[in-house]
Amino acid sequence: MDTLENFTFDEISIGQTASYSKTISERDIILFAAVSGDVNPVHLDPEFAAGTMFKEQIAHGMWTGAIVSAALALTLPGPGAIYLNQNLSFRAPVKIGDTITVKLTVTEKREDKKYLTLDCNIVNQHDKTVALGTAQVIAPTHKMRIPAPQLPPIAIG
Amino acid sequence: MDTLENFTFDEISIGQTASYSKTISERDIILFAAVSGDVNPVHLDPEFAAGTMFKEQIAHGMWTGAIVSAALALTLPGPGAIYLNQNLSFRAPVKIGDTITVKLTVTEKREDKKYLTLDCNIVNQHDKTVALGTAQVIAPTHKMRIPAPQLPPIAIG
Repeated sequence: MDTLENFTFDEISIGQTASYSKTISERDIILFAAVSGDVNPVHLDPEFAAGTMFKEQIAHGMWTGAIVSAALALTLPGPGAIYLNQNLSFRAPVKIGDTITVKLTVTEKREDKKYLTLDCNIVNQHDKTVALGTAQVIAPTHKMRIPAPQLPPIAIG
Repeated sequence: MDTLENFTFDEISIGQTASYSKTISERDIILFAAVSGDVNPVHLDPEFAAGTMFKEQIAHGMWTGAIVSAALALTLPGPGAIYLNQNLSFRAPVKIGDTITVKLTVTEKREDKKYLTLDCNIVNQHDKTVALGTAQVIAPTHKMRIPAPQLPPIAIG
């Protein structure tokens, strides 16, 4: 994604959809642990995780939340959106190698405040729902098409 | 935090509190961008951010969500908790150098399923609320006191 482009409030219609996918690696789990401070061994230690009900390492639940927020910020409405509310219900574990897809659907537009409500359905590569929720954002009023900043390289270990 | 310790469902009472703090650095913003894919310049580019309503770089809203999830996973109930639901309302921007504190309060216990409901109030170093919400988790039934895994070093750039 070299360019970031948004949909303005006026360009958005009820029922509009977008999706965003990401595959989780062990690297993502380590980075999420670093950024949150949550170093629980069910995420980080394969041996410990093997003894839990999950049988193997699982992603932090809120990693899925991070991907939902990225879907809103990158696709619908995209840059310039202001995040107001998110609720998320975690339904199934996400494991290393899983590809999750956030499916966004606009369900409500509130003209006076430029609020959007979006249904968020997050599925894995087997189309199993791993999380469900609703987001509310203020949609941008100005069209934006900007180059995506490049991240510096990140080395682990 | 060298040891992770939990409270079991039976040890937890209504009104019990815990708190967890983290200071955000530019490094955290870069790591959150990497782990989520959200490379919006309002987070990453000081020059771009200066031209927005926020006037300077802001943390991703869901970084605060990550810190809430860490508070639950590390302090109350701690290791062994299973995350069911989270809602979050984002109230004020979080900027580089801000220290946010997640204040958790148990508001409900449901005996049959070992569900806990916790009120989440997230404030900055000026005691201004930056986010508010409610979490629901399954509390652990077994006491756990385990060494905290150490993360490998992470180098940026």
